[in-house]
Amino acid sequence: MDQTALFSLTYGMYILGTEFDGKINACIVNTVSQVTQEPVRVSVNVIKNNYTAELINKSKKFSVSVLSRNASLDTVMNFGYSSGRDRNKFENMSYDTDVQGCPIIRTGCNAVISCKVFETIDLGTHYMFIADVVDCEKTNNDDSMTYGDYRDIKAGKQIDSKSEEKKEMYECSICHYIYDGETSFDELPDDYVCPVCGQPKSVFYKI
Amino acid sequence: MDQTALFSLTYGMYILGTEFDGKINACIVNTVSQVTQEPVRVSVNVIKNNYTAELINKSKKFSVSVLSRNASLDTVMNFGYSSGRDRNKFENMSYDTDVQGCPIIRTGCNAVISCKVFETIDLGTHYMFIADVVDCEKTNNDDSMTYGDYRDIKAGKQIDSKSEEKKEMYECSICHYIYDGETSFDELPDDYVCPVCGQPKSVFYKI
Repeated sequence: MDQTALFSLTYGMYILGTEFDGKINACIVNTVSQVTQEPVRVSVNVIKNNYTAELINKSKKFSVSVLSRNASLDTVMNFGYSSGRDRNKFENMSYDTDVQGCPIIRTGCNAVISCKVFETIDLGTHYMFIADVVDCEKTNNDDSMTYGDYRDIKAGKQIDSKSEEKKEMYECSICHYIYDGETSFDELPDDYVCPVCGQPKSVFYKI
Repeated sequence: MDQTALFSLTYGMYILGTEFDGKINACIVNTVSQVTQEPVRVSVNVIKNNYTAELINKSKKFSVSVLSRNASLDTVMNFGYSSGRDRNKFENMSYDTDVQGCPIIRTGCNAVISCKVFETIDLGTHYMFIADVVDCEKTNNDDSMTYGDYRDIKAGKQIDSKSEEKKEMYECSICHYIYDGETSFDELPDDYVCPVCGQPKSVFYKI
């Protein structure tokens, strides 16, 4: 069993923030996924002895700031390389607070998501928080940072955000099927259903 | 609340396979994450009425074949754009079976992972399967396909795998901290611990 195979799994890079009893903290995580569309829920996986996880267990709320490819290495290192038990990570960092009072970062991030914990799953070394999305905002169109990008940045490579125009496409929010037929999506009949999961036209989003 | 913010979340692209009572099937998913290191467990999220999900609920086992950037669009479409209820997706597709009898794909994939379901979480529209990794294999060093790559490929862009040499780095398998200090990792003292999560040197992997 060659566990390096697990390094082929693709992750993004996120700043996970929370607030409890006036104390704010944040850390870097890489396992944020949308898990259902109705209701809109996400999951995130955090090591148990992480201070942010400890605070989320009390506050039952968190924010996700999605790091973009042009985020500075300093931002990642500030939130990822030390514990909020030892220092205030927000001391020299510009931030806002979301509708729940959790810290959100806009500089170097392309979206912010506010989440209320619905269920906590004890995974032994980690907690998985499954949470309702109570608010979210797309802050710019920069590409998201992947874990692969992060490794490249760490190794000194220059990462440019993609600038080319992307073709207009529609995606099924349930099963992620992408419609790219000859007929424009708007002109499809009202009774069009997703060919994969059978959901109606109304669940499609323009991407 | 602008739900397009959720499109900023980064995903990989995977072929999820299973076998039950002699019937094999597979589909495309994008939410595979490693959730713990001890034991080695992953999670995957699948829409409930998907035929593969139905079979996994009976078989309690699945395989993950990690799509690489050079996978053909035909491979993705074969597994992603129709239901195994209607056709045999493996009819014209080269595949092997893993230690559990689940189908695995090597062409266009860079790793294969065999998983035994430990817990199934009912998320309403989706099931989340949390599973022990019982076997895994890194099949080549091609880059993994991200969902963003897939959209680019769909839009007709040429995607080249990265060919540059990457700097040798060591990563903490628990919290994903990356060591890149001046001292070579091998030469660090035996009592070195991860500065983020405090785990010992032995949990680090070369990446």
